[in-house]
Amino acid sequence: MTTEQDSASVEERVRDLLHSDDVESAREVLLAMHPADQADLFDSLDDDERQTMFSLLDADGAAGLLEHMDEELRKEIAEKMPRGTLAQILDRMKNDIAVDILHEMPPAEASLTLAQMRTAAEVLPLLQHSDETAGGLMTRGYIALHKDMTAEEALAFLRATKPLAEEAYYLYVLDGQNHLQGIVNLRQLVVSEPQTRLSDVMVTDVVSVAPDTDQEEAARLLQRYRLRSLPVVDADGMLSGIITADDIIDVIQEEATEDMYRMVGVGADESALAPVGQSLRRRVPWLVVNLMTAFLSALTVSLFQGTIERVSTLAAFMPVIAGHGGNTGTQVTTLVVRGLALDEVEVKDAATIVAKEIAFGIVHGALVGALTAGLAYLLSGNYWLSIVVFAAMVGNVLVAGIMGALIPLGMRTVKIDPALASAIWLTTFTDVAGFLMLLGTGALLVSKLQ
Amino acid sequence: MTTEQDSASVEERVRDLLHSDDVESAREVLLAMHPADQADLFDSLDDDERQTMFSLLDADGAAGLLEHMDEELRKEIAEKMPRGTLAQILDRMKNDIAVDILHEMPPAEASLTLAQMRTAAEVLPLLQHSDETAGGLMTRGYIALHKDMTAEEALAFLRATKPLAEEAYYLYVLDGQNHLQGIVNLRQLVVSEPQTRLSDVMVTDVVSVAPDTDQEEAARLLQRYRLRSLPVVDADGMLSGIITADDIIDVIQEEATEDMYRMVGVGADESALAPVGQSLRRRVPWLVVNLMTAFLSALTVSLFQGTIERVSTLAAFMPVIAGHGGNTGTQVTTLVVRGLALDEVEVKDAATIVAKEIAFGIVHGALVGALTAGLAYLLSGNYWLSIVVFAAMVGNVLVAGIMGALIPLGMRTVKIDPALASAIWLTTFTDVAGFLMLLGTGALLVSKLQ
Repeated sequence: MTTEQDSASVEERVRDLLHSDDVESAREVLLAMHPADQADLFDSLDDDERQTMFSLLDADGAAGLLEHMDEELRKEIAEKMPRGTLAQILDRMKNDIAVDILHEMPPAEASLTLAQMRTAAEVLPLLQHSDETAGGLMTRGYIALHKDMTAEEALAFLRATKPLAEEAYYLYVLDGQNHLQGIVNLRQLVVSEPQTRLSDVMVTDVVSVAPDTDQEEAARLLQRYRLRSLPVVDADGMLSGIITADDIIDVIQEEATEDMYRMVGVGADESALAPVGQSLRRRVPWLVVNLMTAFLSALTVSLFQGTIERVSTLAAFMPVIAGHGGNTGTQVTTLVVRGLALDEVEVKDAATIVAKEIAFGIVHGALVGALTAGLAYLLSGNYWLSIVVFAAMVGNVLVAGIMGALIPLGMRTVKIDPALASAIWLTTFTDVAGFLMLLGTGALLVSKLQ
Repeated sequence: MTTEQDSASVEERVRDLLHSDDVESAREVLLAMHPADQADLFDSLDDDERQTMFSLLDADGAAGLLEHMDEELRKEIAEKMPRGTLAQILDRMKNDIAVDILHEMPPAEASLTLAQMRTAAEVLPLLQHSDETAGGLMTRGYIALHKDMTAEEALAFLRATKPLAEEAYYLYVLDGQNHLQGIVNLRQLVVSEPQTRLSDVMVTDVVSVAPDTDQEEAARLLQRYRLRSLPVVDADGMLSGIITADDIIDVIQEEATEDMYRMVGVGADESALAPVGQSLRRRVPWLVVNLMTAFLSALTVSLFQGTIERVSTLAAFMPVIAGHGGNTGTQVTTLVVRGLALDEVEVKDAATIVAKEIAFGIVHGALVGALTAGLAYLLSGNYWLSIVVFAAMVGNVLVAGIMGALIPLGMRTVKIDPALASAIWLTTFTDVAGFLMLLGTGALLVSKLQ
């Protein structure tokens, strides 16, 4: 049984052994570690230690380590490796990850590596699919059986070939032309009468995806039908590969991260710990777009300079009205973006959501408007100012609720990712609308406010 | 093979049949649907149609339907059901979901239902665990084998008992006292020599969790080690249950949703389509807290009313400085909150992240400060104003980067969920700091600015 504490102290031990001459002990402790823990350890080592650690692993071990390594580090390591060694390691790796590594290499380098791979014929067809599709996620690590086999023959076949497939529970039943006919699971095979034909026990109502299906859709299906793996079937009905649940879990995490980051204008590959140069390139462009939208707010306010000079208390309420609108709308945008991602909200719900947010905004606006009006009266002693502040607050939370829903739904309608910086468009709206309502009403009533 | 279009047209057909007298056809079409699709259809029906649909299903069918139903609807349906019927359905359901339903019922009602359940003895021990722990997620749907069995005996046992376990690929090897000794998978069993003892082929280095392990930690382990299911072992080493990957996928989605919603002050159970009364209760309390923090900004600005009356252009730059700080900081907070959730960032990285954000802030601040100073010169023709605006912008993006990192890291240190409305605390900071820097410098240089 493995615990958190264990793996920390094991890491310490390996690190010490890497610096000693006791190669055998180092190898032994290292091989006892799970590849995921090896990858963690590797990440924390310096270049020399990494080289020593790598030298302790055979091609199988190196394959396991690379499989669990962080994408960027993996790329770096693969680049430094002699082509022949890399080819051997890729041969022993899960197909889908081997393909990812080849994708990350310069095309010329990738083809030369592929030429030295024993599994080239298996990996080559996978290479044509883009990274974010079902084809890019699939592996050839499945077990295929012919539909005319009996349960007994199928078990004998497994015993004879001892296939080390990634997915060995679902067995894929094909006809002579590799068309997927159905799925039988290993339990059924074991408990069936020996003479039963696979075609009689297989499940034929199979949920499958095409190679160019988006990975998000594949994740949605696997999750919806609570599957362990998902077959990828081409236009001719031939089985191209399978996607396993562990890869889908990665997709789900990635997509959630992407949505969270995109909402605030950050790319999915950014990280809090990335080097500052990378972060500048990844974050600053959007921040500058942001700034330009903020300039719109500045110009809106500058239209009312005369009013602000005469009633400077209005300036104190600018951040309250604009900020509260922004927060209100961001809640709605977040709910809609996530609802769309989880398939709980659809574009056709737009009218329902807007109607609801209007009702929400009237009640909520009246409450926060009254509180803000109270503060305005305390600060100025002028009840006309309270009225202006109240009206602007109610108006802005209504705008916020409506736009908070419509911006992401509109983006989805025109097939733009609704998460894409929707918070930025929203706050531009709530800032400008808030200032227009507060300062505009203020300008109309300026004689009452002084 | 199932496609999206098919299921939409099937739904239509069932809906029509539910209104006809052709009960047999309705049942037939319904039973051909996957329970996940049945649940979707059920959700869209009115009360009468739902009753008709329910009457077409036997207890097994009803169990499948409830398993795939949305939590709130499931609760509503379970409440209306006669106790005996519900008990029969719960008997046929996945343990972990049956437990969830019992948890949602009033305790007295739950115990009376449990008393009528055939599987009461199996479900009762699961009931003691809270919803968000490994114990609350686990099921008894696993296959246990004795360590002294041979491969042949184990296969004969499976053939004789034909267990319909949820997890039938990993087989759990126990000693006579139910202590988990190891795991053997069905493939190994099939390909092993008949006389091999399970204790000789089982994997003993098993990753497991305790019943009170947080569900997030369980998800992290299953994902890290790319497992299909995770055994739950109590303090005495006895196997209490297992957690399957499909439940972990739900946890991962839930936790991502929770983080996204909490960051903007919304509870995890809120939805864009919830009734407005519920949404008001769920969203308004935090929005009011929000408003109070915005009042701090208003009070900050009101300290500088004299300055604003004399240099009203300063008011135009208030939203630019405060807003840009907020956006900058929100990016950092989002990166840190997500990094913590994915275990890529730890509290001990605080100094690294802050140092990086300072470097980031200097470069980014100089750039956006210069752009904003340019606009200030265009609007006012006064280069002193440009200097004030530049200084405030650089200062505020530095504050934003530092606080954007420290707020979630600080919350994690004191064991508060770092996602919890951290965006709200951050923007309070960037608003107040931005106004103090802009208006404070403005007040000092007021004679130059007029």
